[in-house]
Amino acid sequence: MARDSSHGGRDRAGRHGSAIEQVAHEAFAEARRDETPWRGYSHQLILLSATARWSREFRITGGPASPRIWSSRRATSPTRRCAALPKSDAGGLRAGKLPPELLAGLLNGLESGPDVVVGGAVGLDAAAIDFAPGSDRYLLAKTDPITFATDRIGDYAIHVNANDIACMGGRPRWFLATALLPEGTAEAAVRDVFDQLEGACRAIEVSLVGGHTEVTVGLDRPLVIGCMLGTVAPAELLLPRNARAGDDLLLTRGAAVEGTAVLAREAATALRAAGLTELEIAAAADLLDAPGISMLSAARVLKGVAGLHALHDPTEGGIATAVRETATAAGLGFEIEVTGVPVLPETARICAGLGLDPLGLLASGALLAALDPSGTEAALALLADAGIPAARIGRLTSAAGPAGEDSALPTFECDELARYLEGRSDAG
Amino acid sequence: MARDSSHGGRDRAGRHGSAIEQVAHEAFAEARRDETPWRGYSHQLILLSATARWSREFRITGGPASPRIWSSRRATSPTRRCAALPKSDAGGLRAGKLPPELLAGLLNGLESGPDVVVGGAVGLDAAAIDFAPGSDRYLLAKTDPITFATDRIGDYAIHVNANDIACMGGRPRWFLATALLPEGTAEAAVRDVFDQLEGACRAIEVSLVGGHTEVTVGLDRPLVIGCMLGTVAPAELLLPRNARAGDDLLLTRGAAVEGTAVLAREAATALRAAGLTELEIAAAADLLDAPGISMLSAARVLKGVAGLHALHDPTEGGIATAVRETATAAGLGFEIEVTGVPVLPETARICAGLGLDPLGLLASGALLAALDPSGTEAALALLADAGIPAARIGRLTSAAGPAGEDSALPTFECDELARYLEGRSDAG
Repeated sequence: MARDSSHGGRDRAGRHGSAIEQVAHEAFAEARRDETPWRGYSHQLILLSATARWSREFRITGGPASPRIWSSRRATSPTRRCAALPKSDAGGLRAGKLPPELLAGLLNGLESGPDVVVGGAVGLDAAAIDFAPGSDRYLLAKTDPITFATDRIGDYAIHVNANDIACMGGRPRWFLATALLPEGTAEAAVRDVFDQLEGACRAIEVSLVGGHTEVTVGLDRPLVIGCMLGTVAPAELLLPRNARAGDDLLLTRGAAVEGTAVLAREAATALRAAGLTELEIAAAADLLDAPGISMLSAARVLKGVAGLHALHDPTEGGIATAVRETATAAGLGFEIEVTGVPVLPETARICAGLGLDPLGLLASGALLAALDPSGTEAALALLADAGIPAARIGRLTSAAGPAGEDSALPTFECDELARYLEGRSDAG
Repeated sequence: MARDSSHGGRDRAGRHGSAIEQVAHEAFAEARRDETPWRGYSHQLILLSATARWSREFRITGGPASPRIWSSRRATSPTRRCAALPKSDAGGLRAGKLPPELLAGLLNGLESGPDVVVGGAVGLDAAAIDFAPGSDRYLLAKTDPITFATDRIGDYAIHVNANDIACMGGRPRWFLATALLPEGTAEAAVRDVFDQLEGACRAIEVSLVGGHTEVTVGLDRPLVIGCMLGTVAPAELLLPRNARAGDDLLLTRGAAVEGTAVLAREAATALRAAGLTELEIAAAADLLDAPGISMLSAARVLKGVAGLHALHDPTEGGIATAVRETATAAGLGFEIEVTGVPVLPETARICAGLGLDPLGLLASGALLAALDPSGTEAALALLADAGIPAARIGRLTSAAGPAGEDSALPTFECDELARYLEGRSDAG
């Protein structure tokens, strides 16, 4: 799991904190000296990926490519169908998120007091509350559960919730955890969950202020439900709807840290059969530690850039879904340069092996930003300076504007990871 | 479930809000005119209980009784053993709370920032945070899950968390809900959970500001995990450790609203076999609606009383456990007048039928207050005025002080409800 100190900016003495950052810094400086990159509709694909926890090796992949634009204006946008799609039928609701129309109906008409700046609604990362009117801050609050089987449940609970606070422009500060454990859980396993919670809180300077832990009948795995509280200055509150036509879309890290690591852990046998080496599989699994799924460092850097309008953390449905969600939330369209979307080498290898699309794969660890083009150069420079790989991948358009696309971004009905696991369980 | 408007104070015009309150007011006024009640070690046991949702009938039970004191000084305090006791053995952790020594070890050494006024610790109801230093309020935050099978899960999630905010002297304001539903859940069932959440929030003037709802594999019943946020003026923050030797112990409602209602629903067959009528069982089940498990009205009334030192909401282990917890948190002892502990007539009947002790039965709906004796009369008058039955049940003592007891309060290793259900499942 990412530790803030391992990929964040300069230390207090103003020096670069580590050799890692130096490598990244030089790579991006080189890219900026080139005459074509980071501008127009084609550029070098620069990708820096820490592929192993200990060796901290970095690689640069890709190269000049022909422009190929995916756009929201393409009427024939291909759709990746998914048997695992959340839905409701005679047998009741299927596993996963609620069907969007059901959720919208449930949230529609929620009553809130005047102190609720941003309340419960589909697509919002967290609530914003004017807690102490007249003070210099709003309260941000977010709750999200970790319900899949993982030995990293404590880490996930912290970072998933912290990322959502950061997407609102805020700083995560205080965390409450509810841990529900299956009967027969060993005391050592409980301690491990707490160690993860405490370690992850310490790494991002959050106080673990409360919670509830119990052994619950009828569970076959632990569940951890987190509630992250944070602060944001009212003027710095970021909302998805505030993105504007003409904004550049910047992506940090690329596709797809989390999904790649999960597949390396869950599908090792299939990956070996597809020809991947043990080293490649291990390197992919290690992505969960470095760079990890936290994007707080990137959000902190981008907050300092003039013209930043919205942040979004790509999760289920990957980068493609995140782009659509960002545009939809603001009532806009988009143009995406396919060659400009960084794909981790591990992700490319694993997706090729399993027949998955990297752009539809669970992408926590990345950060998608919409900002005025006047701030793009500064944003990329600051991110590079902080050792965080990033690229301009396209822009938001007026939905009614000219299209100009020659390709279309696929629509993913569900995450490629879910589609793979569903297909596997059908086969089994 | 309690609706605030049904048992709270005077309305804005200063009139008594309902006939219910008038009945309560007159009963308590009569009690106060008596020469013996509310003073010394014996008094009339006054009990007002709304026993049916629609009829709103009130009854007064009990009468003069000989003094009989349960005290913490009794070395031979009887212990109710419990096979359902949370513990850890070679087979791992058993269902229920964590063993206290394990939990204490996990929470020991949690790091918190200086803005955390009260953080995670055993026995604390909620965290208190100095959110906007210099403002007139602290942030209170509490998370608690509802994991038992109940058709009232939304109501429970709101009130259980709201009660804990009130115990800190605060006002619950904003709520986030995570709902985890089993596969095959009908859409109507999801709507019912949301209706309960919204209805309960509206009743206590809380804004439902966010949450997460999903269908989770491997569940056999819904789980709802709540996070309640509230406010408290720094000078009004109540902590369990602030109770003092010599404080009176006041109890509202009595034993045991919640446990009685749950038993009426879960053990109807056994209750019929024990001779209870359908009407008695239905009346007991209705306690969940009136008076319900919310004690916000009582807490609000008591906050206005000078000399209030601590509030505690009796839950698992009943009134007896709540008294012990209140004393232990402040490092004190106690003297309890057994005849002064109000027991709902439904509770007395059901406990007699099933062989359970009313004072060890799940008692949400009640509120235990520790306050300077100089405030007792005013507190009881204000509660009576608000239509909330209450009684002085004893006092806190210096742990090293003279004993003077002639009996001992039992120790309940686990709630009487859990003991009953465990015994029943063993028999089955």
